[in-house]
Order: sequence, then structure tokens, then C-alpha cells
Amino acid sequence: MPLTSRIQTAVDTAIRTGQAGKAPPQLARALDYAVNPGGARIRPTICLSVAMACGDDRPAVSDAAACAIELIHCASLVHDDMPCFDNAPLRRGKPAVHKAYGEPLALLTGDSLIIMAFEVLARAAATDTERAVTLIRVLGESTGMPGGICAGQGWESEAEIDLGAYHRAKTGALFTAATRMGAAAAGADETAWTELGARIGEAFQVADDLRDALYDADTLGKPAGQDAINNRPNAVHQLGVRGAIRRLEDILSGAIASIPSCPGEAALCDMVRKTAERLTPVLPAHHLA
Amino acid sequence: MPLTSRIQTAVDTAIRTGQAGKAPPQLARALDYAVNPGGARIRPTICLSVAMACGDDRPAVSDAAACAIELIHCASLVHDDMPCFDNAPLRRGKPAVHKAYGEPLALLTGDSLIIMAFEVLARAAATDTERAVTLIRVLGESTGMPGGICAGQGWESEAEIDLGAYHRAKTGALFTAATRMGAAAAGADETAWTELGARIGEAFQVADDLRDALYDADTLGKPAGQDAINNRPNAVHQLGVRGAIRRLEDILSGAIASIPSCPGEAALCDMVRKTAERLTPVLPAHHLA
Repeated sequence: MPLTSRIQTAVDTAIRTGQAGKAPPQLARALDYAVNPGGARIRPTICLSVAMACGDDRPAVSDAAACAIELIHCASLVHDDMPCFDNAPLRRGKPAVHKAYGEPLALLTGDSLIIMAFEVLARAAATDTERAVTLIRVLGESTGMPGGICAGQGWESEAEIDLGAYHRAKTGALFTAATRMGAAAAGADETAWTELGARIGEAFQVADDLRDALYDADTLGKPAGQDAINNRPNAVHQLGVRGAIRRLEDILSGAIASIPSCPGEAALCDMVRKTAERLTPVLPAHHLA
Repeated sequence: MPLTSRIQTAVDTAIRTGQAGKAPPQLARALDYAVNPGGARIRPTICLSVAMACGDDRPAVSDAAACAIELIHCASLVHDDMPCFDNAPLRRGKPAVHKAYGEPLALLTGDSLIIMAFEVLARAAATDTERAVTLIRVLGESTGMPGGICAGQGWESEAEIDLGAYHRAKTGALFTAATRMGAAAAGADETAWTELGARIGEAFQVADDLRDALYDADTLGKPAGQDAINNRPNAVHQLGVRGAIRRLEDILSGAIASIPSCPGEAALCDMVRKTAERLTPVLPAHHLA
């Protein structure tokens, strides 16, 4: 089965389980609305690619890992879009969850998706208990305090931001989760896979900075120029457009160099290169002169 | 060690772990603010009492279970108090987290405490992997969708409420989690302990309805009469004060009758009776005539 189908099947199964029985109907619908149609599913794709590079000998566990990461990512988008954070009316080209369902259900949708991610991993224990526990531990580290995406978001409430800690937590944590959990799902040593995830996370951050600075809301499917409006650090402001693109290329070379020796190393290098191409923004004409 | 010390030590250890390293300072402080000083710690006390009744042969696992339940409970209070839900300025006699730290950090505090609860259980896998996985599964069921406290809160956004599902999820789920997880932490069959938790949850709901209807904000340490203001179902509106108190007594008799046979059955019956006494409100004078 292609990666995209594996991810979609795992996500749909998780959502249906959360909607079963006597669930409150609107919240049940909001769960699906928050995850479908998905974005690029970059994090779970990286997770499954690493799992396959490491042998993917327990596909059910790999699918659970990929699904859990995507659920957490969607939860973070729902909460980040709320009025007390980005106050973003649009996400993936449609009204954000709090616009479609109201703030109370948006808050609960995020909470429910976070919990669902851990439940998906707990169910994977039926296939492999030790690996499931490792995955739960890594997902927790990558999501909560002191170093997960909650911590990253928390830095935005500080007068003085530790930029390294901020980026590692806000964007990097779910990418390192993706590579570490892909490896752990396939029984490999997850600690060897942190650097690849960190490099991909850095690349993604620079690419996101470029898109935020260069694209309009129609192209992005969400409001543009938010970093400048919210006074957040952005690589384009620091390095200029061409400098940021050079940085992106350097980071991705480093990412490929960091891949640990594994059975599917060549295919994984190829995946990282393709991700790099997808990440690099097409420059608007006035930047190409 | 007395139960209250075991619970406090476990909660403090979890919070310190979440504050370690390069954590954003305000969010780190808000985590502690949200759980200390605690309320009555009723749910973790029930959890540890059941674990002890079942032999408590892995105290570290029992402590993790009790701590996880308390962290989830505190997370739910932080989110429930926010402006989009109860908009409650006070909690446990001090400003609610969103009043003390602002809405963004309140949202993140709740998220972080939810995640921390699962991390605490994942760490307990070092002592007993199988039990830790069971605890994670039960905590997920009790917290998320379709039947956990998120679902319970979700019912409040529906035009037509399924009252049974609402109460089971909103209040009952964390009490059944307390009894089930206490049993599971001690290696007993958790499914036999659902009814005790459900009965205690019902009793707690009726007691809470009585306090909400009878007490003023100073006595409660939070705004009074919120059920009437928010048009939520309340046993006092349905049965009157004396009817509600009779209902409370009947439920607690049923709770004691439901306790499964276990080594510490007598002590557990005693704990339930004491909880009952603590729950039953002291009636203001004009209701005693």
C-alpha cells in the first residue's frame, strides 16, 4: 500500500473510533473536520519512510506512530489558530475549526486529538508492547513540556525568547518525533535518528519563513505575513530571500549526510531530496531578477 | 507514607520534570500554579485506596496512576475555566490560570498537563510494562472521545443533551478511571471496578449540584449558581434539596455494595463512607427547618 494510503487509513480508523458510541455529534464531526482533507502529511510520511528504511517489520506499529504524529500536528494547528494565539480564520483553504464549530469545540477538538494520539499508540501495544511504550514516551517528550511543541508555543509568551530552544521545540520537536518514532516502530535505536529529524525541522522552518514572507493568503490557504504581524523571528528578515534559500539547501545536505546506516538508506535519501524540492518555494518573479 | 504525601510527591515530581531544562519560564510556573495548592485530591485518593485494597504490590505504578488522574483533572479545570467555557475568574480561592497567566498560557498549561499525565504512565513502564499500557489505555478512554471528559464537555455544545452520556462522560469518567486504574496498577482486573467508580461519580455530581445551588462564592472558592446561569442540568432543580440528599445517600450505599472482593475490602468501604461524609454538604440553616 502506498504511504499516503497507509497514513489516511490509520487516521480515518482513529477518528472513527473517537466518533463511536454515544459521542456528542458536533465534537465528533469537528474531529474529522480538523484532520480531513489533510495537508501534505509531511511528518507521518517522514515517519513511515524512516520505518521502511529500518525494515518496517511491524507495519501496524509504524502506522500507529505515523497516525499519532499527524493527530498531534492537527491538534496543534487547531489550538494555534484560536483567537488567543494566531486568531487565524483560515486553515488549508477552509474556515479554521473555531470558525466552523466555535471556540469551545475547537479547544475540545485539540484536546481530544492529543489524547487520541496516545490511545492509538496504546492500541499498538497489542502488536508490540515494548515498542508502543517507547513511542508513547517519545511522543510525550516531543509534544509537552519542557521541550515539546507546547513549550515552543509557550516561548511566544516570553519577553525574551531563547531562539534555539524555541525553534527546537516549536517546529523541530515533531520532526525529530517523526524520525525517532519511525525508527522505534521498526525496532531500531531511536536515539540515532534525532539529527535527521532536527535537520528536516530546520529546513521546514526556513521554508515556512520563506512562504510566510513571499506568498499571499490565496496561495498559502491561510493568512500571509503573520510572522511580521506577530513579531516572530523569521529567517527571511535575518538573511534575506536568497540567503534563506542557500541556508535551506545547506540544511538539507546536512540532513542527508546524517542518515544512519540502515537497510533502506538509498530510498530514504531520495525521500529527503524530494521533500526538499517540495519545501523550496517557487519564487515570485520579482525575486528572480 | 500517608496517601496525601504519596500523591503530592508524585505530582511534584511530575511537575518538576516538566519544568526541567530549557523550559519557557512562565509556562513552567503556570504548570505548578495549576496543580498547587491542590483541592481535595479526591480522584487520586480513590485511585490509591483501590490500589491498596488490591494489594498495592507495585507502589510506583500506583503512584503514577494516581498522579496521572490528578494531572488530567487539573488540566480539565484550567480549560473549563477559560472564557470560552465557564469564564470563571476564581478557582480554589485564587485567580484561575487564564486570569493569572493569560489565555494563551492557560490553553498550553492544560495541553501540557494532559500530555504529562501520559508521560508519567509511560515512565511507570520501567516498573511494569503491561500495567503501564493498561493504565494508558484506560486514561485515554476516560479523558478523550467518544466517552471521556472531553466528550462530556462536548455535550454542553449540543442543543439536545443525552443526559446519561453527558454525566457518565463529564463527571463519571475520571471516577471510573480512578477505581479502574487503582485496580490495574495493583495487577487486578480493572473491569470489575467500573461500577464503584461510576457510583462515586454520581454521588459527586449530586454533591456538586447541591454545593452549586446552596453555597456562595466565598464558601466554594469559585463562582456559585453556575448551573442555573449556564442552564446546565442540576439534581437540586429536579429533586429539591432534600430529594437530592436522599439520592446522594442511596448512591453511596450502592457504591459500597458494588466493591469487588479484595484483600483490603473493609478499609476501602471505610474510605468510601468517609468520602461520602466529606461530600455531603452542610446545609445552610434555612434548609434545616
